[in-house]
Amino acid sequence: MSKFQRHVFICVNERDHGDPRGDCTLKGSPAVLDAFKKKLHDRGLKRVVRANKAGCLDQCAQGCTIVVYPEQVWYGHVTPADVEEIVESHIVGGVPVARLVIPDDLLTGKAP
Amino acid sequence: MSKFQRHVFICVNERDHGDPRGDCTLKGSPAVLDAFKKKLHDRGLKRVVRANKAGCLDQCAQGCTIVVYPEQVWYGHVTPADVEEIVESHIVGGVPVARLVIPDDLLTGKAP
Repeated sequence: MSKFQRHVFICVNERDHGDPRGDCTLKGSPAVLDAFKKKLHDRGLKRVVRANKAGCLDQCAQGCTIVVYPEQVWYGHVTPADVEEIVESHIVGGVPVARLVIPDDLLTGKAP
Repeated sequence: MSKFQRHVFICVNERDHGDPRGDCTLKGSPAVLDAFKKKLHDRGLKRVVRANKAGCLDQCAQGCTIVVYPEQVWYGHVTPADVEEIVESHIVGGVPVARLVIPDDLLTGKAP
């Protein structure tokens, strides 16, 4: 199947600097994106796992926020120092990094 | 489960205007994004289905490109006129719009 095995979306939204919500870019998400791209390249996963810029993922209080599909695992307060663990444990090993997972009750999006 | 039922990523990448690849924004993707946001709002789906800006989705030849998760269905050459059908048939009805689906052999991303 010629599709990405996993697709990692990293919020790089920017708001006006006076906005009380802040934004993931101010919280350092461009460096998280770069760390994912480098790590996936180093692990030979660049063609099958994509680290993708995303606009606002609507989980602003948890920024920097990322979401991993197809399993839709949400991570919050991610820093570049967390990227190696997310790639090795989750992307390669299939085990999400529990300490960074945003609890369901804090996520935007409601049950059907 | 407090998660999005579906998450629609619309490429709004922009390149230098001389770049031979063009980009999805030049091909009209901001209007596609707006059409999704309006349609999802009108259908009362705004809180459970998110239309999200994305950076380059790496399927440039197929732009405007979108991908729908969690099922990872890719659509190419999408226009605002296609959005109602995608929402009604796929998002609401669960049946992807075959005429717009990018064939697997044209997708970036290789088999394991």
